Amino acid sequence: MEKVNLTEKFSKFSDYWSPKIAGEINDSYVKLVKLKGEFVWHHHEQEDELFLVVKGKLLIKLRDRDILLEEGEFVIIPRGVEHLPIAEEEAHVILLEPKSTLNTGNTQNERTVANPDRI
Amino acid sequence: MEKVNLTEKFSKFSDYWSPKIAGEINDSYVKLVKLKGEFVWHHHEQEDELFLVVKGKLLIKLRDRDILLEEGEFVIIPRGVEHLPIAEEEAHVILLEPKSTLNTGNTQNERTVANPDRI
Repeated sequence: MEKVNLTEKFSKFSDYWSPKIAGEINDSYVKLVKLKGEFVWHHHEQEDELFLVVKGKLLIKLRDRDILLEEGEFVIIPRGVEHLPIAEEEAHVILLEPKSTLNTGNTQNERTVANPDRI
Repeated sequence: MEKVNLTEKFSKFSDYWSPKIAGEINDSYVKLVKLKGEFVWHHHEQEDELFLVVKGKLLIKLRDRDILLEEGEFVIIPRGVEHLPIAEEEAHVILLEPKSTLNTGNTQNERTVANPDRI
């Protein structure tokens, strides 16, 4: 059991949209991810997903509205809700989601990361 | 589904050692808590517990060593591991733990908060 320093962990990688596992808690992973640009519309059938912004801004488009997350803000996207994450500038985000969660949810494509690295 | 601004939520309460529910994700709660002083030794039989410090410092004593968490650091205390949180000065902490988790774990006393408020 070791503590995790977010700044130090985020300094260890530079690729976007590729979540890294930073901790394991019950049946979930804590993941760190750098985002820049637009992702893909998707939803998760069975899993709620938390986004906590630690640096930058993250726009989460929903089908009926947008949520703009700034530093120190989080949102929990309930299972089944379609969402599209967009970061105009680089953003650093903590994700919390069940181990079974795939980053692209119901949509599998070249951006799917099936086996995230541990960091 | 609303976003949560941590600074704004933490400004809404001032009591110590009394976690407030700020979000619900799968079978867990995201809780916010202000800590000051020493808590009680306890463990959680079935639940891992995450502590993420957003302001101040949190010392977590274990039976064999101490972990000092500063701002932007988290640790996950695995189920069964005895721990004693201590905050010399006021600390603001995000907790993530299963809904079934009692703040005092296996130890029930006057500091037990059986039904945390929502914030």
